[in-house]
Amino acid sequence: MNVLIIYAHHEPTSFTAAMKNIAVQALEADGHNVVVSDLYGQGFSAVAQKWDFVTTSGNHFNYMSEQKHAANLQMSFSPDILGEIQKLQAADTLLIISPIWWFSVPAILKGWFDRVLAMGVAWDTGKFYENGLMRGKQAMLLMAGGHPAEYYKVNGRHGANPNQILHPINHGTLAFCGFNVHEPFVALNVISANNLSREKALKDLEFRVKNIPHSPQWLTLYA
Amino acid sequence: MNVLIIYAHHEPTSFTAAMKNIAVQALEADGHNVVVSDLYGQGFSAVAQKWDFVTTSGNHFNYMSEQKHAANLQMSFSPDILGEIQKLQAADTLLIISPIWWFSVPAILKGWFDRVLAMGVAWDTGKFYENGLMRGKQAMLLMAGGHPAEYYKVNGRHGANPNQILHPINHGTLAFCGFNVHEPFVALNVISANNLSREKALKDLEFRVKNIPHSPQWLTLYA
Repeated sequence: MNVLIIYAHHEPTSFTAAMKNIAVQALEADGHNVVVSDLYGQGFSAVAQKWDFVTTSGNHFNYMSEQKHAANLQMSFSPDILGEIQKLQAADTLLIISPIWWFSVPAILKGWFDRVLAMGVAWDTGKFYENGLMRGKQAMLLMAGGHPAEYYKVNGRHGANPNQILHPINHGTLAFCGFNVHEPFVALNVISANNLSREKALKDLEFRVKNIPHSPQWLTLYA
Repeated sequence: MNVLIIYAHHEPTSFTAAMKNIAVQALEADGHNVVVSDLYGQGFSAVAQKWDFVTTSGNHFNYMSEQKHAANLQMSFSPDILGEIQKLQAADTLLIISPIWWFSVPAILKGWFDRVLAMGVAWDTGKFYENGLMRGKQAMLLMAGGHPAEYYKVNGRHGANPNQILHPINHGTLAFCGFNVHEPFVALNVISANNLSREKALKDLEFRVKNIPHSPQWLTLYA
């Protein structure tokens, strides 16, 4: 497989960093080609801006229309976006490794979705979900959350389970672009966890990563 | 009321800008005090970084712990974060006005959640949900989505309704901090809408904004 890992944590001694390191080692040991976009390390810009495009199409600035315009103009995106698009196009497997912040991803990673999964590149008019431009590629979230598992239940404090909480990413972002989305790996309770449970979680992650082609599909939970 | 509006759109001629303008006018006409954080206009930084703190507490960088550390050290956050915290503390009502991007908010607004709703400021250990530090304040989302309403159904293309899609923000972010969260205002189909339906949507928004104290509560949909 040609794997692109999008990694979003500042701290090399964090649990999220350990997840990324294990994933890279496990995949490379199996002979896969792995590229990591270390968003903090790259100083990736999160905010969708006018200067994301070499030229803009008019006076009324609509980011989505400008993405389509740039895609039509031989990919006239800013170099940082173009670099990420090229990595994405070269990959058949996208792994997103991130902490859960506010039931979602950190802004730096949300900015990667906003800027890189561009109209005309990852999806287009009439080309989304089963016709999305990323069809044929697979994607999987690997995330770490601080609260204990009992919070992440419909009747728990968080009022929803991890798959419901991650619906905007798994369904609304990845499946929308046509990715074949796998069941996410979510390590919970990582703040209070002892070393044994962290090691267990990393072993579970290694197993999931080594078996991606046989990994269960993510299913939308509301249909 | 003392209202803080967090506004996240680049384009002054956008529908989201019109939503913000109507909200400001309606509230000021009723004698309320309104402050707008125009995130794009301010050049608000979205990415949680080490330099968000005047000093950091140690070698292992954990953003949440540093927030708590800064809150304990007489609010030693970077000036841009401190400015937003002060506006938030002076407000009794928070309105968030934004487009829906990838079933969520644009990264610049996610960065506002990540950086401003800090541990020790908006919530703390054992101080979240009904004990959140923002209790006594009310909050409401006012958002614009491009796709038609029939997509936003459990059996529709998006596999979830707007309240389910916004659960990470209404529940996991605002209610978590203790805000009294109102039913969101969500204008759908704004890309294809004609002028009449846009005007209707802005009228509906005006009515909602003028009646915030009597506005229905947002209810978690899974419990």
